[in-house]
Amino acid sequence: MRIVLDAMGSDNCPAPEVEGAIQAAMDFDIELTLVGDAARVQPLLEQHTPLPANLSLTHAPDTITMEDKGLKLALKAKKKNSRTSMAVGMDMLKNGTADAFVTAGNTGGALTTAYFRLGVIEGVERPALSALVPVRGGFCAVLDIGANPDCKPEHLLQFAVMGSIYAQSALGIDNPRIGLLSNGEEAGKGNELVRETYPLLEASGLNFYGNIEGKELFGGEVDVAVTDGFTGNVLIKSSEAVAKLLVDMLRESLMGSLRTKLGALAAKPAFDELKRMLNPDEIGAAPL
Amino acid sequence: MRIVLDAMGSDNCPAPEVEGAIQAAMDFDIELTLVGDAARVQPLLEQHTPLPANLSLTHAPDTITMEDKGLKLALKAKKKNSRTSMAVGMDMLKNGTADAFVTAGNTGGALTTAYFRLGVIEGVERPALSALVPVRGGFCAVLDIGANPDCKPEHLLQFAVMGSIYAQSALGIDNPRIGLLSNGEEAGKGNELVRETYPLLEASGLNFYGNIEGKELFGGEVDVAVTDGFTGNVLIKSSEAVAKLLVDMLRESLMGSLRTKLGALAAKPAFDELKRMLNPDEIGAAPL
Repeated sequence: MRIVLDAMGSDNCPAPEVEGAIQAAMDFDIELTLVGDAARVQPLLEQHTPLPANLSLTHAPDTITMEDKGLKLALKAKKKNSRTSMAVGMDMLKNGTADAFVTAGNTGGALTTAYFRLGVIEGVERPALSALVPVRGGFCAVLDIGANPDCKPEHLLQFAVMGSIYAQSALGIDNPRIGLLSNGEEAGKGNELVRETYPLLEASGLNFYGNIEGKELFGGEVDVAVTDGFTGNVLIKSSEAVAKLLVDMLRESLMGSLRTKLGALAAKPAFDELKRMLNPDEIGAAPL
Repeated sequence: MRIVLDAMGSDNCPAPEVEGAIQAAMDFDIELTLVGDAARVQPLLEQHTPLPANLSLTHAPDTITMEDKGLKLALKAKKKNSRTSMAVGMDMLKNGTADAFVTAGNTGGALTTAYFRLGVIEGVERPALSALVPVRGGFCAVLDIGANPDCKPEHLLQFAVMGSIYAQSALGIDNPRIGLLSNGEEAGKGNELVRETYPLLEASGLNFYGNIEGKELFGGEVDVAVTDGFTGNVLIKSSEAVAKLLVDMLRESLMGSLRTKLGALAAKPAFDELKRMLNPDEIGAAPL
C-alpha cells in the first residue's frame, strides 16, 4: 500500500505531519510519501536519524491554506501545472504511483482538488464527504456529511452508489445495505427530498433497506446511510456532542463520592475502551 | 394547576392512563381530570378505593385512534360538536376550566385538534412539536421535531417566536437565547432554508444567538434551538440512539471482567443518575 500524506495540511504544519509519518512508517508495512515544501519539511526529517527506509519526501512548493476559497481555490485545484501539496499528491493517485492520499487541510480544497484532478465516478455529479460512524457491531458509512447542504433526489441516489462502492472496496462488505435517513421508518415518511429519493433507491438495484432512523443507524442495521449534507452534518456533530456530554456527565457523577470514585477506578479498563471507541481521532477522518 | 389527561391515548388505554392519573393525583397538588369513555374508564376507577378527591372523570364517548388520518381525522378534530377525548379535553382549555392537556395518543390527531380548537399564536401559520432536550446545565427546547418536515424561512421564524414564549412561560427563562441549527456556526453557513432564515431571526427582536451546531446545543449555550421538522426529528432520534448505544456498550464493557464488574457495582449510584437523566420516560413528551 502506497500512501501519500499532505505535509502542509494542519494548522501547525508540517511538524505534526512529519512526526506522524515517521511513526506510521515505523509501525506499518506501507510505503509512505510526504508531499510538501521541501525547505520546511526536509529540516524536520533530518532531525530524525535514521529515517525509516519506507518514508520519502516529494517536493510541492505551493499550499492550499485554510483561507483559500472561491476562484482562487478553484484555480489552485484545477490548473494543470498546480504545485500545491494537494495537487501534487492527488496527481500521484491519478498516475498510479500511489494508492491513497491523506490530508488534514482545507476540506473544500481537498474536495475541489479531487474533483478536478481525479474526477468522479461516471454518473456522479457531486462528490460527497462521508464519515465512518461507530455503530453496534461495526461501522456505518454516512454520506453526505457536509459537501452538499442542498441536494436533489438524484444526488442522494449518487451518494448511495458511491457509499455502496466504498463499503464494498474499503470495508470489504458484500452487497452493502443502504438506508435512507428519514423522520420515520415507513415508506412515505420524509421531507420532500426523501420522499422523492425513495423510489429512485428502490429501483436502483442497490441493496436498499428502506428508510432508517437513528435507532437503525446506530443499531447497525445498515452499512451505508444516505442523506443530504446538511442533515448529515447535523447528525454527525450532534452525535459527537451527545457522546461527549454523556461521558463528561458520567465522569462528574463518578467523582461525586468516594464510593463511586473507587468504582470508577476499578472500572477504568471499561471506560478506556469506551473512550477509544468514541475518540474522534481514531475515526474522525472523512473519506472522500 | 388543573390538568386534563386523555384516558384514550395509549395503545393499551385506558388502564395505564387511569393508573398514572391516580398516582399523579396522590403525589402532586393538582386538579386532575381524566377525559374518555366513561363505560371503559369508570369500572377501572372503581377498582381503586378511596379515589383521590382531586381526581375526576369527564365523559367523551368518541376517540381518535392511531389509524385516523386525512379528512376523517380533520373532521373529528374540527367539528364543533366533536366528542373525541382530545376535542373534549382541549375545549376545557379553551373555555378556561383547565390549564394543560396531556395525551399519549395519535400525534397528528393532537396537532390537528389543537390547531382547530385552540388556534395558534397570531402570526403563526403552523404548530410545531418541541422536545425538551437535556443539555449541560439544564434543558434546551428544540422545535420543530416532526410536525413540519418541509419548512419555509418564515415558519422557522415562527417556531423561534413560539419557542421563546414557551421557554419564558414554561421554563421561566428571561429573554431566552435562540439558536438556529446549522452545519457550521458562522453566519452564511447552512442550507438554503437556514441561510434565508438567519436574517429574519437577526431582525426579529428575539435574543438571537446565531447558528449553532451540536456542541453549542448540548453544551447548553442556548435555551431554544430552531430547525425544520425533518432535521429536528433526525437530531432527536439520533441523539437518543447514540445515548442508548453508549450506555449499552458501557454496560457490556463493565460486565467483561470481575474487576470492572466490581467497579460497576461500586459506581452504581452514578450510573443510576445518568440513567435517570437519559430516560425518555422522564422527558420524552413533546410540548405542542
